[in-house]
Amino acid sequence: MNTELLQQNAAEIRRAYEDLKAKDLNLDLTRGKPSAEQLDFSDELLSLPGAGNYVAKDGTDTRNYGNLKGIKDIRQIWADVQGLPVEQVLAEDSSSLNIEFDLVSWAFHFGTNDSPRPWSQEEKVKWICPVPGYDRHFSITEAFGVEMITVPMTEDGCDMDAVRELVKDPQVKGMWVVPMFSNPTGVTFSEETCRALAAMDTAAPDFRIMWDNAYAVHTLTDSFPEIHNVIAFAEEAGNPNRFWCFSSTSKITFAGSGVSFFASSAENLAWYEKTASIRGIGPNKVNQLAHAQFFGDAEGVRQVMLKHSASLAPKFQAVLRILDERLSDYGVASWTRPEGGYFISLDVLDGTAARVIQLAKDAGIALTGAGSTFPLHQDPNDRNIRLAPSLPPVEELETAMDGVATCVLLAAVEKIS
Amino acid sequence: MNTELLQQNAAEIRRAYEDLKAKDLNLDLTRGKPSAEQLDFSDELLSLPGAGNYVAKDGTDTRNYGNLKGIKDIRQIWADVQGLPVEQVLAEDSSSLNIEFDLVSWAFHFGTNDSPRPWSQEEKVKWICPVPGYDRHFSITEAFGVEMITVPMTEDGCDMDAVRELVKDPQVKGMWVVPMFSNPTGVTFSEETCRALAAMDTAAPDFRIMWDNAYAVHTLTDSFPEIHNVIAFAEEAGNPNRFWCFSSTSKITFAGSGVSFFASSAENLAWYEKTASIRGIGPNKVNQLAHAQFFGDAEGVRQVMLKHSASLAPKFQAVLRILDERLSDYGVASWTRPEGGYFISLDVLDGTAARVIQLAKDAGIALTGAGSTFPLHQDPNDRNIRLAPSLPPVEELETAMDGVATCVLLAAVEKIS
Repeated sequence: MNTELLQQNAAEIRRAYEDLKAKDLNLDLTRGKPSAEQLDFSDELLSLPGAGNYVAKDGTDTRNYGNLKGIKDIRQIWADVQGLPVEQVLAEDSSSLNIEFDLVSWAFHFGTNDSPRPWSQEEKVKWICPVPGYDRHFSITEAFGVEMITVPMTEDGCDMDAVRELVKDPQVKGMWVVPMFSNPTGVTFSEETCRALAAMDTAAPDFRIMWDNAYAVHTLTDSFPEIHNVIAFAEEAGNPNRFWCFSSTSKITFAGSGVSFFASSAENLAWYEKTASIRGIGPNKVNQLAHAQFFGDAEGVRQVMLKHSASLAPKFQAVLRILDERLSDYGVASWTRPEGGYFISLDVLDGTAARVIQLAKDAGIALTGAGSTFPLHQDPNDRNIRLAPSLPPVEELETAMDGVATCVLLAAVEKIS
Repeated sequence: MNTELLQQNAAEIRRAYEDLKAKDLNLDLTRGKPSAEQLDFSDELLSLPGAGNYVAKDGTDTRNYGNLKGIKDIRQIWADVQGLPVEQVLAEDSSSLNIEFDLVSWAFHFGTNDSPRPWSQEEKVKWICPVPGYDRHFSITEAFGVEMITVPMTEDGCDMDAVRELVKDPQVKGMWVVPMFSNPTGVTFSEETCRALAAMDTAAPDFRIMWDNAYAVHTLTDSFPEIHNVIAFAEEAGNPNRFWCFSSTSKITFAGSGVSFFASSAENLAWYEKTASIRGIGPNKVNQLAHAQFFGDAEGVRQVMLKHSASLAPKFQAVLRILDERLSDYGVASWTRPEGGYFISLDVLDGTAARVIQLAKDAGIALTGAGSTFPLHQDPNDRNIRLAPSLPPVEELETAMDGVATCVLLAAVEKIS
């Protein structure tokens, strides 16, 4: 930290904050929502599958009841995107978060296919949470009274030594992972880390990794990283049922009305379908058919993603440029430079994140709540802020980020005063 | 039973069955699926909401995340159909069965808003099941280990004396009801029965009636019965949280890709939303907008239902005509004459239902499994068979029903031999 420079410019920073407040802004960087421009890329989908058009490739009338697995038309495209056999991929309704919640819920009620008893009958259930991470994941395990244990994220994924130590505890039943362009760090798990997670010994026979590959194809460049087949890695290592894998088209077509996917071993899928078949009859197949028609094939998915990249990359660049310009000299913050995903993770001076967020709020700039990238909203260092650049137009984003930079500096000035 | 006539015609009945088997049929009367003709009534929906068309009346971009309650456009139409205030009606994804499962699941995990503790912590949970009833309802309570206690259906709903007696037991936490054109009896609960259910004293403070109004507007005539506002009845009686009410467009537009609805008291909805907001971000609003555009208003819903009535009524008439012609003289069976819904309930000679279904199966006619209208698939009198006339074309249906009639007679002949 360049304390001298901070002190030298303290008055100017305070004045800049007063100017910011005077602007009476109303800007929102809270959530990873696609912009209207991005949603327009899928405009065609609003009139698909089209009148008279309802038959899946296997002859199924998608308008009628049935088919818990989803139609093969869209399952095949997603299997190709992910490099998986189609038999391991189910297509469901719009939200993969829904499936994640249900799996935890059903493991508590009924136990998994590898559980000696329902998790609700365990004295305690513990869970590994790489941090910073996704707030909605932590909310699910919180709701079920799970004790969440954090491990640090690294450049290659997560701290594997810490994970290996934790899974020696038979009460540790699972782990949240966003493996590619992670929320919020942008980190992509390396093949080595993927294989280590697949191969490690766990004391719990029913240990599960919630592999939420929400950003698998969400590049901010013009290339796509390899999607590692962790289900195959785990099978090779003798742990075939380790991964529950999720993805969806939420940030590809329409957020909230796309298609979600659940991929896992045959045994895990059979276990899921047993309860899913009691919960209902099957997913929205008409929407699945519309999506299959819209994409055509896996290459069609990547073509859509390049449009998103072209729309989002300038926004990320604008945020990074402002952070570089305004904050580099002070050494009071560090931030990620993601090549994909929806977020920039900003670490400010320890003990000032909540203050920065409050200052921004008072100036009309909404940021994701303090601590929300940590379980129970408790950031032990009060350091991390998740920035979501996707929704606002570039000019608004620049105004907001310039304001955020001012708040970061002011909080640092206050801290050293 | 006319034993004499049966004996007299026994040889002829046996011969008819041999002829039936020789036809090598492959017909299916198992489930209440709409026919292709019915699905065609909503063909327009396949290209709705249409390119460039995604804004709800309140200005929401339906393509983006958010709005756990569903969009008001479709909630208002459904509130009008049901005679409810829009605030009491949520619009969700396609399946009301999904919501029913989740409510039971969440009551077990977390307890309801009126529960002293989660149901999973109760020594035992019991449930009232009017019979014959809907197999998928019973499967949900079965999955959660609930003890299901049957009460007989009556012409006005269900045996209220039996219900009033059962709810004196604090372990009795709920009850399944299909209140209009019930599955499979076709019975519609009278206002008196609705008010009695709303007003009765229950020992459990968190007693809930799962009011699955799946066939509220599914008339087989040209008129629509009144939909009683049980939520208001319950509020008037001082039991505001008694009813969880469900319906959907599954058998109005497309089965499996429609919109489902959950209606209840403000307190119950708040309790539901608390967990629903952890499970996900919101339902498929694009599909909701498409449905709102397709219907226009509540009258639009009824107009679609009159088309369904015109398509289904001849099928029901064909079944009833064949049952009358083939079985009336023998007195070995009785059946319902529903004015709405999807089923005819056929009671055969005690102890022969499973045999009838087996005989039909051997002749290539699939009927709903024996006992499936009873909890745990146990029909104590082995008497009830659910007939689903909607899916096959009329000629197939006539062939199938003529075959079923032969099987009913043959099983009776075997029984008295």
